[in-house]
Order: sequence, then structure tokens, then C-alpha cells
Amino acid sequence: MRKTLRAAALSALLISSAVMAEPTDDVAWQITADLTTEIGARPAGSEREAKARDWAVARLKLLGFQNVRIEPFTVTGFVRGTETAELTGPYPHKLHITALGYSVPTPTGGLTAQMVYFPTLDALKAAPEGSLKGKIAFIDHAFVASQDGAGYGPYGQVRRQGPAIAAAKGAVGVVIRSIGTDHNRDPHTGVTSWPDPAKAIPAGAVSIPDAMLIARIAQTGKPMTLHLVLEGRPQPNLPSGNVIAELPGRDPSLPPIMLACHLDSWDLGTGAIDDAAGCGIITAAALRAQRGGKPLRTIRVLWSGSEEIGVFGGAAYGKAHADEPHALVMESDFGADRVWRVKFNLSAANKPMQDRITARLALMGIVPRGDKAGGGADTGAIIAAQKPAVIDLDQDGTRYFDLHHTPDDTLDKVDPAQLEQNVAAWTVVLEEVANEAGPIKPAD
Amino acid sequence: MRKTLRAAALSALLISSAVMAEPTDDVAWQITADLTTEIGARPAGSEREAKARDWAVARLKLLGFQNVRIEPFTVTGFVRGTETAELTGPYPHKLHITALGYSVPTPTGGLTAQMVYFPTLDALKAAPEGSLKGKIAFIDHAFVASQDGAGYGPYGQVRRQGPAIAAAKGAVGVVIRSIGTDHNRDPHTGVTSWPDPAKAIPAGAVSIPDAMLIARIAQTGKPMTLHLVLEGRPQPNLPSGNVIAELPGRDPSLPPIMLACHLDSWDLGTGAIDDAAGCGIITAAALRAQRGGKPLRTIRVLWSGSEEIGVFGGAAYGKAHADEPHALVMESDFGADRVWRVKFNLSAANKPMQDRITARLALMGIVPRGDKAGGGADTGAIIAAQKPAVIDLDQDGTRYFDLHHTPDDTLDKVDPAQLEQNVAAWTVVLEEVANEAGPIKPAD
Repeated sequence: MRKTLRAAALSALLISSAVMAEPTDDVAWQITADLTTEIGARPAGSEREAKARDWAVARLKLLGFQNVRIEPFTVTGFVRGTETAELTGPYPHKLHITALGYSVPTPTGGLTAQMVYFPTLDALKAAPEGSLKGKIAFIDHAFVASQDGAGYGPYGQVRRQGPAIAAAKGAVGVVIRSIGTDHNRDPHTGVTSWPDPAKAIPAGAVSIPDAMLIARIAQTGKPMTLHLVLEGRPQPNLPSGNVIAELPGRDPSLPPIMLACHLDSWDLGTGAIDDAAGCGIITAAALRAQRGGKPLRTIRVLWSGSEEIGVFGGAAYGKAHADEPHALVMESDFGADRVWRVKFNLSAANKPMQDRITARLALMGIVPRGDKAGGGADTGAIIAAQKPAVIDLDQDGTRYFDLHHTPDDTLDKVDPAQLEQNVAAWTVVLEEVANEAGPIKPAD
Repeated sequence: MRKTLRAAALSALLISSAVMAEPTDDVAWQITADLTTEIGARPAGSEREAKARDWAVARLKLLGFQNVRIEPFTVTGFVRGTETAELTGPYPHKLHITALGYSVPTPTGGLTAQMVYFPTLDALKAAPEGSLKGKIAFIDHAFVASQDGAGYGPYGQVRRQGPAIAAAKGAVGVVIRSIGTDHNRDPHTGVTSWPDPAKAIPAGAVSIPDAMLIARIAQTGKPMTLHLVLEGRPQPNLPSGNVIAELPGRDPSLPPIMLACHLDSWDLGTGAIDDAAGCGIITAAALRAQRGGKPLRTIRVLWSGSEEIGVFGGAAYGKAHADEPHALVMESDFGADRVWRVKFNLSAANKPMQDRITARLALMGIVPRGDKAGGGADTGAIIAAQKPAVIDLDQDGTRYFDLHHTPDDTLDKVDPAQLEQNVAAWTVVLEEVANEAGPIKPAD
């Protein structure tokens, strides 16, 4: 039903955009389909990520990009191992679990311990020092879907901070409810962080139905015992890298427009919505923006590496290119569903350009909102270093966290009509910004 | 969105039924929740199914049922083992696979072979004799969701017949697209059958996204190689049994009303919609039909065993009770979503009773249709033996095959409001049929 309603809304949008006589192509779809089919999962620092970089270079050259190159760096990756969890008491259940990135392995033969239920991260924080000694902490939460994905910030702290907090209170292992909004039996992975890596403990996420089962059993008050096997571990000094390519503008002296996505993916799915589609969108739009003739400014695309385990590619780009002026940066890393909102960080002098963009996007049903554009993970470092202008094209995230970091992130989740709407919206923005002769500056 | 619309529709229904001042209770929910939480997966012939029988006896006695007993029988079960599948060429991908019931194990170390793609079962049937010698057959299909689940019959033949057909053409293994309508990464299990068990081969189902990946790769024309490990195997002489319980009527000389569900489940999920909810519905309705006073006829519930691997419980019941008259039988084994249609197999003499039922169900938005009621799997043998009257309360199956036989069949998929609507509809039918003094007979 949801899909049908969306498809109808999309058709309406596409009819509107057809009035503008945009030519369409299937570059975004082909990148998304081929990367997920010919490469598939491409975890940070892996041999598959290296294959993906070679694939990306070949594809970008084939599409006519110039200055196509790999900028290498090394990372500490995470190599998954056997992972199982079994509730052995009070009721036996095999749970669906996956290790969090940077979990450390359980002892040989696994770990069996009492599991203590915390309904929220705050409840865990309130547990007395040392109270989890020898125990496994279970952290629940109540993340639900929203169009702008607002819950991921606060509820995501369960994954980002929860394990280290549990370890500090003496826990020998930690299990969280997946940071997701679906009811599939597939757990969501994602990185956790250890302020002191020497104090890392095994850390995993169970699927949401498994977490709901644990919550029901916890309510009985009967003690829970868990047998946990998580054999994944961090692995240092792995090769990674960014892929960078350009479509040179008519005036190479003008600072370029820079567009980012990420090439790596989590290992569980094939990284279709996260973030093959983002690479497809920015690349297709950069090309389509050439159709009215070569724009004034160079458009550069960054397909960054090792985003998932700590935004290594974005950091490496920010460092390597800190001294190059960037006129404006944009990022696509929130799936492949329709763009519904546009946000700007542009100077008052750029108001006429902003108004032209707003007017054209309004024809597609994309609404401007007052919040200032902030970019994304992979543009964070270059924004900090260069303070360029920023435009955000916000995608509908209602179902994003159903799929995020799970085995379910596969090509069939990408709706070609919504993917095309993204390309059309990005093209509108690029046609305006890449042809702006005057200075492009942020509001502050 | 779908859930929200349904919930709204349901609220409307429940307001209508509230006019009838039906008292409600949570017996159906408690059976469904407790069976899936305290027992969980309960595969045919397993120790968990035996625990479930004991649990069922205790619960039915607690609820006030009489003549509560277990009628034992033995079955050949299916014991799952390690199961993995990896596409090794032309592109490496780990696939999500599960063995079909009655698959036989791959050789030690697994099986590596060329995989041949068949878009349909008919395409496989058309393959020349011997053409699959040494190969693995992949069988695709196009099953999509419908309210009445109509596609399960024809598309389900891919699972039921496909493996034996592939084996007869020389295949050393067979993989099918799961018989499901979802896009989750969880494969659907289910039994296959071997006309000659000596010719059985390893047989598994991949998830639908994996099947779509295989189909895309097959379209390239590049040869596909699969490494398959399926260690599950049939196991004979396992204990199983039916649980039977009664609420005696005022006139024990009248043939009883018999209601069926099944107690066993597949091993992958916790068997919430298939079929803990069915047992909850029939049991709660049998009890609620007592509230206006003890009905004239005895109501008997059958929680059958080992349905999933060949309807052993239904067959055992049919054999053991072939000589007892049964006035009317009904079965609930199609999930927990709302009843939307009623079908009858009642004599012309029972037309006044049928009209009363139809009129009361019409108030709940449940429509009568001309098709004759046929019962379900577990009532098949007793219907064949006794030719009783039958009434079917058809549930909305739109999302049933998203979940059927997968790890996703868990309690969170049961909507309490829709479950309650089922109990209300069944209670209406039971209040009429269990108080019918005259003969209750089928149309033919």
C-alpha cells in the first residue's frame, strides 16, 4: 500500500518535471544495479572494496569523466566472524545477532552469562558502578520511523555509546536492540566506539523481533542467561581509498562544485541504498547537467572509501584537499527515495541563485525549509576546512532505517522512479550552481 | 501506511461489533504470546514440539476445557544442519539460503557445480532428459501477494514438485526462489516431496532478493557456479502427537463441532502467525461461545501436530476418529489478519442457520461468497472420512506469504485488533452452529 501511494505521488511529480522537458537516462540505475550485482558487499578495507574502486574508475572513465584517480589511505577495518546468540534461560531461543563494528571477539567457546535488561540508554547510565561485573548488558530503545530520520541521532547513541558505558560498569558483553525501524529478523550492524580500545568487549545487535522477545521475557522477572559467540574483530592497516573524478567546467579558475557519496558498504547487504544509489544519483546528475552545454564550473565527484567504519574517506579528502577552494558541496547518503526538502547554506549575495533553485524545485513538490544545510558525513571534513556553501537535498527517510546496515539493503529496495526524481532534482541544482559566475559563499 | 489504513478499517469494524455488546477477553492473544515466548519454534517431531504439547495440555485445562488429552503418533521429521550458499562465479556473492524440508545433505565439504537458471517450473519441465547431469538447477517464479493467497497453489509447485523434476533430469542439487511475496533477505522453507525418496537431492530456497540477483546475473549469459552446503536431513521415527480438548455441550448425544489449528511450527521463526494465532482464535472463540450459557453441542478443539511436514496430525485425527460423527468442522491456519469472507458447505435444510450467520457477520463487514467451504489441511482427512458440514472464515492473506515459513514469523506480526476480530467472527459462527438442534449437514 505504501509503495502504491508513493508511486502515485511520484507519477504526479514526474509529470510535473516532464513539463520542464528534462531528458532522462538510466545512468543512476545502471551504477546502482551494476555495482551491487558485479561487486556486491564492499566492506571498508576489504578486497571487495578494492575491486569496487577499480570498477568505479573504469565506469567513471567510460561515462566521460576526467582526472579519474584513486587517492589511497589505510584504515582499521572490522572482519566479521561466526556470530550466534542463544537464550538458554528461562526459555530457550536462538536469536538473530550480528556483531557491531569494532566489537572484539568472545573467548574460545563463547561466553555464557546472565543478561541484564535496560529499557533505555539512560537506565544503563544509571546502573551503579561495577553492577554489571561478569554480566551481559541488554540495551533496548524505542526508535521509530520518521520522514527526516530524526530518531537516528538520539537512539543511535545506544549503539555508539552503549557498549563502552556497559564495559565501564563491568559488563563482559553487550547486546543491543538493532538501531532500526523494521520488524524483519535481520539485525542491523554499525560501528560502536571505545574511548579506551583496551576496554572493548564483545558487542552485538539482535533483530527487533528478538529484542521484543527479550523485553517480554524480561517483564516476567525471571533471570535470563545468554550464550554469546561473536568472533569478529578489528583489523588494522587495511588498504582503502577515495575515487575522485571531474567534469571540467569552462572556467577552470573558478572553485569547483563538489558532490559526495560513499563507495564502501556494510558486509551484510549489497549496499544498494547505502550508498550505491547515492553514487548513482550524484554521477548521473553531474552528467545530465552537461546537456545544456558545458557548465562554467568544474563538477567533482567523490566516491569515498571506508565511510561506514568511521568516515575515513571523508577525513582523508578533507585533509588532502584542505587548501583547495571549494565553491559548494553536496552529499547523497540517505537512500534512494524521493527528495522532499531542500536546505541551503548560502550568502545573502547568492539569494537570486537560491530563489531560482527554490522555484524550479517547487515545481517538483520539493519544499524549502529554514534550517541551514549541513552536508553529510563525507563532506564534514572539507566543510570544516574550507567553509564552502552547502545545499542539502533531503530524501524521504521513512523506510531508510528499515534497511540500513542490514542484509536487506539490496537492489530491489531501490524504486527506479524515485531514483530518477533524485537525479532530476540534483540536476536542477547543478544547472544553477555550476553556471553561477559570481562568488558562491555560505551564510556564515 | 498499510498498517495504518488497516488499523483504521479495523477500528470501524470493532465499533460495529461493539454495538453487539460482545464481551471481549485476551485469551487468543495470551495463547499466541505465551506459546511463542515460552516455547518458540516447535518443529514437527522435536523435543520442542513435545514441550509444546505439555504446555498446551496445561493451558487448555487451565482455561476449563475437559477431556484434554494427547493422541501420539510418530513421524519422519527434518533436522536442519549448516546451510550456506556462495555464488563463486561470475561474481562472488554470499546467498541467504535455507534447506527445504526433506532435502538430503550435500557431500562432505559441500557441492560445487554450474547452476542453470530456469525462469519457471514449466521451463524446467521442458529441459531435455539428462541435460542437468552434474548441475544445480535454479527455479525462479513470479508469486505475488493477493488477499486470498491464490498464488500459493500454482507457484508453490516450484517447491513441492520442482526438486524431484530437477533430480529426474540429472541435477545434483536444486535451489528455488523462496515461495514468498516479501523482499526480506530471509528465505522461506517448506516441504518438498520425492516420489522416489532414493532419488532425493539437496534442495534449498534462497531469499527473494537473492533470487532477483541470480536472475540479473543469468541475464548476462555468463555461466554461474554455486558452492552449496546443506547439511539438514530427514529423521525417521520421531514422536509427535495431537492435543484434543472439549467443552461439553448440553446434549452429548449430538455430534460435536470440531475446530482445528496446528501446534507445530517451522524451526526458523516462532510460529506466531503459523499457527499459534490459529490455536488462539479457535480456543478463545470456543470459550466465548459459552458466555450466553452452555451451548447445546460439544465443541472440540484439535491442536494438531506435525502439520508442516506433511499434515501428519490431521491424518492421524482422521484415522482415529473416522467413525465418530462430526456435525461441522472449521479450521484456522492462515495467519492472524482479519476475516473478510465466509464460505459454507451446508445443506438446504440448514439455510435458516446459514442466513443468521451471514446476517451477523455482515455487520462486521464479512462477505458471503458462493464458493463452497473446503476446510483446511488438518481437517482434510476427517472431512474425507465423515463428510461433515464445513464453514470457512477466510482471513486477509495479503501479507501472509511475506512471513510464511520464515524467521520473520514472530509475535510482533500479530495485530491484536485483527486477532480480536477473528475471535469475534468465530464466536458468531459457534453461537449459531453449537446451538442448532436439528441435523447439520453439508450440501453434498
